[in-house]
Amino acid sequence: MKKPFTSLLTLAVLTAPLLLAAQTVEKIDTAMVSKIKNEGMNRSQVMDILSMLTDIHGPRLTNSPGYKNAANYAKTTLESWGVQNVVFDTWEEDFGRGWQLKKFSLSSLAPAYFPMIAYPKAWSPGVKGAIQAEAVYLDISKEEDLKKYEGKLKGKIVMFSLPTPVKPGFKPDATRLSDSTLLVMANAGVIEAQGGRRFSSPQEPQRLAYAKWALCQKEGAVAVIEASSSFRLEDGTLTVAAATVPYPAETPFSKRVAAYKENVPKILPQVVVSAEHYNRLVRQIQKGQTVKLELALETAFTPSAPGYNVIGEIPGTDLKDEVVMIGAHLDSWHSGTGTTDNAAGSAVMLEAIRILKTLGVSPRRTIRIALWGGEEQGLLGSKSYVKRTYGERLDKAYPYDSIKMTPAAEKFSVYLNMDNGSGRFRGIYLQGNENIGNIFRAWFKPFNKVGASTLTLQNTGGTDHLSFDAIGLPGFQFIQDPLEYGTRTHHTSMDVYDKAVEGDLKQNASIVASFAWLAAMRDEKMPRK
Amino acid sequence: MKKPFTSLLTLAVLTAPLLLAAQTVEKIDTAMVSKIKNEGMNRSQVMDILSMLTDIHGPRLTNSPGYKNAANYAKTTLESWGVQNVVFDTWEEDFGRGWQLKKFSLSSLAPAYFPMIAYPKAWSPGVKGAIQAEAVYLDISKEEDLKKYEGKLKGKIVMFSLPTPVKPGFKPDATRLSDSTLLVMANAGVIEAQGGRRFSSPQEPQRLAYAKWALCQKEGAVAVIEASSSFRLEDGTLTVAAATVPYPAETPFSKRVAAYKENVPKILPQVVVSAEHYNRLVRQIQKGQTVKLELALETAFTPSAPGYNVIGEIPGTDLKDEVVMIGAHLDSWHSGTGTTDNAAGSAVMLEAIRILKTLGVSPRRTIRIALWGGEEQGLLGSKSYVKRTYGERLDKAYPYDSIKMTPAAEKFSVYLNMDNGSGRFRGIYLQGNENIGNIFRAWFKPFNKVGASTLTLQNTGGTDHLSFDAIGLPGFQFIQDPLEYGTRTHHTSMDVYDKAVEGDLKQNASIVASFAWLAAMRDEKMPRK
Repeated sequence: MKKPFTSLLTLAVLTAPLLLAAQTVEKIDTAMVSKIKNEGMNRSQVMDILSMLTDIHGPRLTNSPGYKNAANYAKTTLESWGVQNVVFDTWEEDFGRGWQLKKFSLSSLAPAYFPMIAYPKAWSPGVKGAIQAEAVYLDISKEEDLKKYEGKLKGKIVMFSLPTPVKPGFKPDATRLSDSTLLVMANAGVIEAQGGRRFSSPQEPQRLAYAKWALCQKEGAVAVIEASSSFRLEDGTLTVAAATVPYPAETPFSKRVAAYKENVPKILPQVVVSAEHYNRLVRQIQKGQTVKLELALETAFTPSAPGYNVIGEIPGTDLKDEVVMIGAHLDSWHSGTGTTDNAAGSAVMLEAIRILKTLGVSPRRTIRIALWGGEEQGLLGSKSYVKRTYGERLDKAYPYDSIKMTPAAEKFSVYLNMDNGSGRFRGIYLQGNENIGNIFRAWFKPFNKVGASTLTLQNTGGTDHLSFDAIGLPGFQFIQDPLEYGTRTHHTSMDVYDKAVEGDLKQNASIVASFAWLAAMRDEKMPRK
Repeated sequence: MKKPFTSLLTLAVLTAPLLLAAQTVEKIDTAMVSKIKNEGMNRSQVMDILSMLTDIHGPRLTNSPGYKNAANYAKTTLESWGVQNVVFDTWEEDFGRGWQLKKFSLSSLAPAYFPMIAYPKAWSPGVKGAIQAEAVYLDISKEEDLKKYEGKLKGKIVMFSLPTPVKPGFKPDATRLSDSTLLVMANAGVIEAQGGRRFSSPQEPQRLAYAKWALCQKEGAVAVIEASSSFRLEDGTLTVAAATVPYPAETPFSKRVAAYKENVPKILPQVVVSAEHYNRLVRQIQKGQTVKLELALETAFTPSAPGYNVIGEIPGTDLKDEVVMIGAHLDSWHSGTGTTDNAAGSAVMLEAIRILKTLGVSPRRTIRIALWGGEEQGLLGSKSYVKRTYGERLDKAYPYDSIKMTPAAEKFSVYLNMDNGSGRFRGIYLQGNENIGNIFRAWFKPFNKVGASTLTLQNTGGTDHLSFDAIGLPGFQFIQDPLEYGTRTHHTSMDVYDKAVEGDLKQNASIVASFAWLAAMRDEKMPRK
C-alpha cells in the first residue's frame, strides 16, 4: 500500500501551486503577526485594563458617573499610548439620565431576621430613609384575582412575581465550544438576521402585568420586589436590568418612555430578589406568617444629556482616508461590574491598540477604536455613530434598497466587534458575506493551533456590528467560547472581574491586533456582500 | 442455542431453594413496605416539614432561638401525631451561649459604592451603630511583613485573608453517584475510621495566623473581614462557620475556648465576604485606592445553658424494652437556613415517624427518633445521649477495650442516621460490620429499582452514627447522592430550602420508615461487629 500513497502525495505536491493559483491567495505578514502574539501573550496588560474598567470604574450604566469615569480612563489611556484624535463622540440626541445607587439594603425582619440577596433595578427611584413595611404577595394568575388585593396594598412592599423554580445544577456553568458544535456552524448556511422583525408577545400576560402594576400604583404600594428570573442560574445570582415602566398592552412601542428618560411617568421603586430568598418569603406567607421587610434605597440621577462613545485612531499612511475599525461597548448593566458584558470586549480592544502602538506600527489605513455607549438600550452608540458617519436606511422595512450612504462609507473597510462574554475566539460569523471567507481563513491560520479557525456563514445578532451590517458595511462579531456567559454572568450580579479568564482575553487581543493590522495593510479594502 | 439455555434455567430454578437455605434468609414483610412506600411517596409531608424547619425556624444554630423554635415545632408535631415520651433531652453539661444576628449590612463606600455579599461568623460580637472605616489589606506571607502594619490598624477594618482564586465552573455543581463509583464502594474493604486520631496541622501557618490576629487586636482594629474559602464554589456563595478564637500554636486543644463559651476571651467582630467582592477590594487597594467600608453588625447572645436534643417514641409491644433508633441533627450553621445540613435529615426522620403513625403500626420493639443538637460543634448531642444512655469509652486511645456499657445497651438494636445532604439513598455504609450485610441487602430489595442497593464495608465519618459506633453499637449512615452538597450548600449561605429535591427526600423517608419497621419486627436485634 505504500507505493500508491506516495504517488498520490507526489501528485498532490505537484498540482498544489496550480490549485492555489486558481483561488485568490491572501498573503499575510507572518513576522508581524508573530510580533503581535509575542507582545499580546507575554507582556499583556489586558487584565490590568479590565480591572480598571470594572473594579475601579464599574459598573458603567450609560451616561452614569461610572460610565463617565471609565470613558475618561479610556481616553487618557489611549492618549498616553500616543493614540490620536481621541474624542468623546457625542450622539445627535439626548440619551436620558444617568443613575447611581447611593445606598441599598433589604432585610427580612419577621418572622425571621435575614439580610436578603437583592439589587435595585437600574433607574429605580429610591425610598426615604429605611422603611419598614409588610410584604404582600400578589398571588395572581387571572384578572379576577386582582380584587382580593383592593384596599390591601397601601404602604406595603408588594411581591410582584411568582416564585422562580430552582433546580440542582447537573450541567456545568462553564463550557467551551466542542468540535461538533463548531462543525455545525462551519457547515451552516446563512440564517436571516431577525433584527428587522418584531415578535409581538402574547397580549394576555401583558394585560395582566399592566393591571398588576396599575393596582400597585393606585393602591399606594411603597415598593415592588420581584424574584430573579430563571433565565440564568440561581445560587443567589441576580439577573437585573432596567426598571419597568408599565404601559397598557395596546400602547405602541414608539409611545413608551423608558425609565432613563426625563419624561418617564412616575414609577415605583423596584428591587430584584434572589430566587431562593424570594421563594422563602412566599412560603412563609403561604404558611400564614406576616412578613415584615426593611428597605433602604437611595438613588441619584444625573440630568438628561446626549450619550457619547469614545473614539481614537492610529492614523494611516498612504491609505489614511480608509478606515479599519475595532470596537466593543463600554456601557454595562449595574448589579455586577459589567465584566463579561462588556468590559472584556473593551479591554481586548484597548489592549489590541496598545500592542500595535507598542510595536510602533505605521499602518497603511487608519485603525480606529470605538468604545460604544448605550448598547444595552439598543445599540444606541454604534447606531448613532454609523448614521452620522456612514449613512442610514431610510426605510427600515427594506434592508438594502433605501440606504443613503455618506462619502466616508466608500472609504470604510471593516468593523470587528467582541461582545459575547470573555471566552476565547474560536472563529468568526461571516454575516452571509461569502466573499470574505478566504481572507479570514488566512488570517486565522497563525491562531489555528489555539482553536480559532471556524468560519460560519451564519449571522449573529444582539450587538454593535449590526449597526454596520444594517447598511451593508462589513461588520463582524467573533465566535467565542461561552464559558459562564449565558449561564451565570450575562446581566447578573456575578458579572464581575473574577469571571474573566486571562488566557482567553490575551489571545483575543492578539487576534484583534493581528486582524486590524492585516486589514489595514492589504491591497484592497475588505469585500462587501 | 435455545435449548441449552432453557436447560440451564430449569436447573437454576430447581436448585435455587437449596442455595438459599444455605444462607440465613432475611424475611421481610413486603406488604407493609408497600404500604409505607405508598404513604411516603403519595401523601408525603416531608417538604412541608422541611419548610417549617428552614423557612420558618431556620437557621438553627445550637442553643439559639432558631434552634429552640425548631425543637418546639418538632416536639409539638411529634405529639400531634401521637408519638409518646417526647422530651427535650438535656445534656449533662452546659453547651454555651446561643447567638442571633439582629442586623447586618456591609457596603463599600469608596472608591465605588456597592453593597457587599457577606455574612458574619457565628458568635461574632457586633459593632455599635453603623461604623465607617478604611479597609487595610494585610498583605502578609511571613512574620517580618507584620511590622509594616504597626500603628496602622487602629479603627480600621482589617482584610485578614489572601484573595480566593475564582475559576470557571467546568464541572457541574450537582451529581449523582455513578455505577462505577458505587461499584468501587461495593468492592471496598473496611477503611479504618480516623475519628480517634488527631492530625496536627503545620505549626508555621498557625503561628503566622496567630501573630496576625494578635496584631489586629493589639493595634485596635474594629473588625476583621475574610474572603470566603475556595473549598466550595464561589458565585457569591459564602462558606461561614464560627468566629475564630485565636490561640498560639502551642496551646493544646483542650485549653482553647470556643466562641460560644461564656468564658471566651474577647475577640474581634468577624465577617466573611464573597470571594469576588473581597478580591475586588484587594485589587482596588493594590491600585492605590483608599477603600472605605460601612459595617452594621448587631448580634445578640443568650445565656450559657446546657444543650438539648429532641427525643420521642413509638412504644413497642412484646419487645418494648428493645430500641430501634432513627435520627439526624437538628442544629445547623447560620448563613443559610441549614437545609441540606441537616433539616433534610431531620425532616426525613420526622416524616418516617409520621408515615408509621399514619399507618397505625404497633411495632414489637420501640422505635425512637432523636433530633440532635450540637452536631456542628463535634457531635455533642448524640455523644452526650449515648454516654448517658448506653455507655462510654473510658480510654479514648483504646476503641473497644475500655467501654463501660449500661444495661440499656443490651437492649439496643440499631441506629440509622441521615446527614450527607438532601440526596437520595443509594445504599449504606456497613462500618465494617460484615454480619449485617445480608439483612440490609434484603431490606433494600424493594428499593433496588429506584437505585438504592449498594452495601459497602467502608466506614464513613463526620456525623452522629459515630457516637453509637464508638462504643460498638450498630450505628449507620446511608450512602447518598451528592447533588450540590460538597460543591455548593455544605456550611454555606446557599444551604436553603430550594436546594432540596422533593423526590429524593420522599424516597429517603420511605426507606427509613421501612428499615425502622423491619428492625423493630425481626426476631433478633441487629447483629454487632
